[in-house]
Amino acid sequence: MGAGDKGAAVYDVGRLKAKTAEIAGKAGVPKADADRIADVLVTADMRGIFSHGVVRLARYIDCINAGGIKPAAELEILRESPNSLMASAAGGLGIPAAVKAMERLLDKAKTQAISIGTVSHSDHYGAAGYYAMMAADRGFVGFSASNTCPLVAPTGGRAATIGNNPFAYAAPGGRHRAVLFDVCMSKVAAGKLVIAAEAGQTIPEGLILTKDGRPTTDPGEIWHDAVMLPFGEHKGYGLAVMVEMMTGVLGMAGMMSGVHSWNTQPGRDADTGHSFVVVNPEFFGGGDAFRSRIDAMVDELKACPPCDGSTEVLYPGELEWRREAKALADGLALPAASVAELTRAARMTGVEV
Amino acid sequence: MGAGDKGAAVYDVGRLKAKTAEIAGKAGVPKADADRIADVLVTADMRGIFSHGVVRLARYIDCINAGGIKPAAELEILRESPNSLMASAAGGLGIPAAVKAMERLLDKAKTQAISIGTVSHSDHYGAAGYYAMMAADRGFVGFSASNTCPLVAPTGGRAATIGNNPFAYAAPGGRHRAVLFDVCMSKVAAGKLVIAAEAGQTIPEGLILTKDGRPTTDPGEIWHDAVMLPFGEHKGYGLAVMVEMMTGVLGMAGMMSGVHSWNTQPGRDADTGHSFVVVNPEFFGGGDAFRSRIDAMVDELKACPPCDGSTEVLYPGELEWRREAKALADGLALPAASVAELTRAARMTGVEV
Repeated sequence: MGAGDKGAAVYDVGRLKAKTAEIAGKAGVPKADADRIADVLVTADMRGIFSHGVVRLARYIDCINAGGIKPAAELEILRESPNSLMASAAGGLGIPAAVKAMERLLDKAKTQAISIGTVSHSDHYGAAGYYAMMAADRGFVGFSASNTCPLVAPTGGRAATIGNNPFAYAAPGGRHRAVLFDVCMSKVAAGKLVIAAEAGQTIPEGLILTKDGRPTTDPGEIWHDAVMLPFGEHKGYGLAVMVEMMTGVLGMAGMMSGVHSWNTQPGRDADTGHSFVVVNPEFFGGGDAFRSRIDAMVDELKACPPCDGSTEVLYPGELEWRREAKALADGLALPAASVAELTRAARMTGVEV
Repeated sequence: MGAGDKGAAVYDVGRLKAKTAEIAGKAGVPKADADRIADVLVTADMRGIFSHGVVRLARYIDCINAGGIKPAAELEILRESPNSLMASAAGGLGIPAAVKAMERLLDKAKTQAISIGTVSHSDHYGAAGYYAMMAADRGFVGFSASNTCPLVAPTGGRAATIGNNPFAYAAPGGRHRAVLFDVCMSKVAAGKLVIAAEAGQTIPEGLILTKDGRPTTDPGEIWHDAVMLPFGEHKGYGLAVMVEMMTGVLGMAGMMSGVHSWNTQPGRDADTGHSFVVVNPEFFGGGDAFRSRIDAMVDELKACPPCDGSTEVLYPGELEWRREAKALADGLALPAASVAELTRAARMTGVEV
């Protein structure tokens, strides 16, 4: 499946999507949903978010095989109003549930200044920014958030009590494609700690605590129940609570310890909650004015002179658009871990690699 | 006007509000708006946010006297839909404009899953959390944000390019009054730098940059055009952009360099923009379920064992509720700077202190 002049780890985007969808299909996912999964995962890889790309597919299949995810579950609409949607993924995959909820919300957004949707009984939904960009690509402002199983200690605490709760927004520009922001609430992603530990490196104090609540510079503590700390101290903590409130609490999904890890409990409904908000600029200054004002904002950010050690100011999303353009032009260079996990997914489903 | 057993700096909350309103009224602010200003400012002081309390009143009056704020301006509704509001403060005070916009939005919220409002041509609106709590006190989830004049360097930059853009949310609980979160996007507030500089202290690197873009440990650089850095590096930067997008860009208010400082340009319409969002839990699992789930979330946070150097985990807002209860019970202890500025405001308006 690999191709390209940099060796086996560079892939044609279209072929990678097709292969990803084929594997998902063989795992029991209906064709249209398998295509959605492929698009969400490969788009994350194209934007350089490898931690949320095709590397995840094998684990989704582990969960399907363990009975924790129903591959063909359909999104259930529990309540609806002209500008709201309360849905359940019914124990299915997070990605197709989130895409379908957002599609339904975008229909409402055409005639509403602001709309909101929640999804419960879901699972890992990939990169939060994908759903925000579904809105931005149609001229709307989009917000996307999900809770996760407990991973982060609240400020002043030492136990994994709240998720790292990803949050994203996107807003469409004119000359500039869009502003896109996609973060989790921990200071560092668990995947980066694993990489540092495997490389024998130390980390600055303040990223994680040992399970006894002590500061440490050893990333290997992540294998001994170390707990992640929120970014920006109480500010990141408060934002994690915001996401929990808008997903698990509002959407009647699992919340806090009620969200189960798809990594340690693959046989269980994770009961993850997502939340989406869409704003229509036509109810304010109009879509054209909005786009040109986003451009003006970005231009001012870009015009800021660089500080010591920097060569330019980037706007949120700019790096992602550069990577995406490069992946489309030159092929997508996947890290070894992504290739290994995709290969594992292919073998589990009997797909040729 | 002072009273209490701790000396002249402890005030009865009711009398302090009355005096604050009297001063605002003498500055040309209509009675109902003067009462709103007093409530917003004194509430911030009661919650321990002295930087946004009565200390600000004298400066509002400076702006009125300089012609930059019209004390009797009325909120103008520019556009409206069943769940949205686009308004202008018409060059008036930020606080009454924000309170009135939120009141109008809360009327819409009764029959809408989610509602949104913006205000342009406004000025400093006090503590962002006040407006979020207006929603929470009525059983809704509330969000509140405002842009400011450029104060913060974007990640990689060295010039004050974007505001420190305050953002708040609040959600009602049952046993626990509410979750309340209210932050700005800089690592440290300018007021704290001034206090550190006056005390001859140094600060950790990474809070501010000199005007040449170099790191510094001297808080006194704030008097030499030092620029504040965003909290959490690119994450705080991206959140500042989010607030700019939802206030200035969406609401057709001033944005970026188009927002003028009420401190350095008191004679000019600041053209500050605010944005408010209200979510009604009745369109999801219902208000009672929402409140009890907020309680359950808070209980889980509080049950987290403390880390080294901590005695308990606080939920967002908990400290504010404790301070507010103490101020109501024992009187409000105001810092010297607040007393001095309130006295200045009284003298400017001929009110007895």
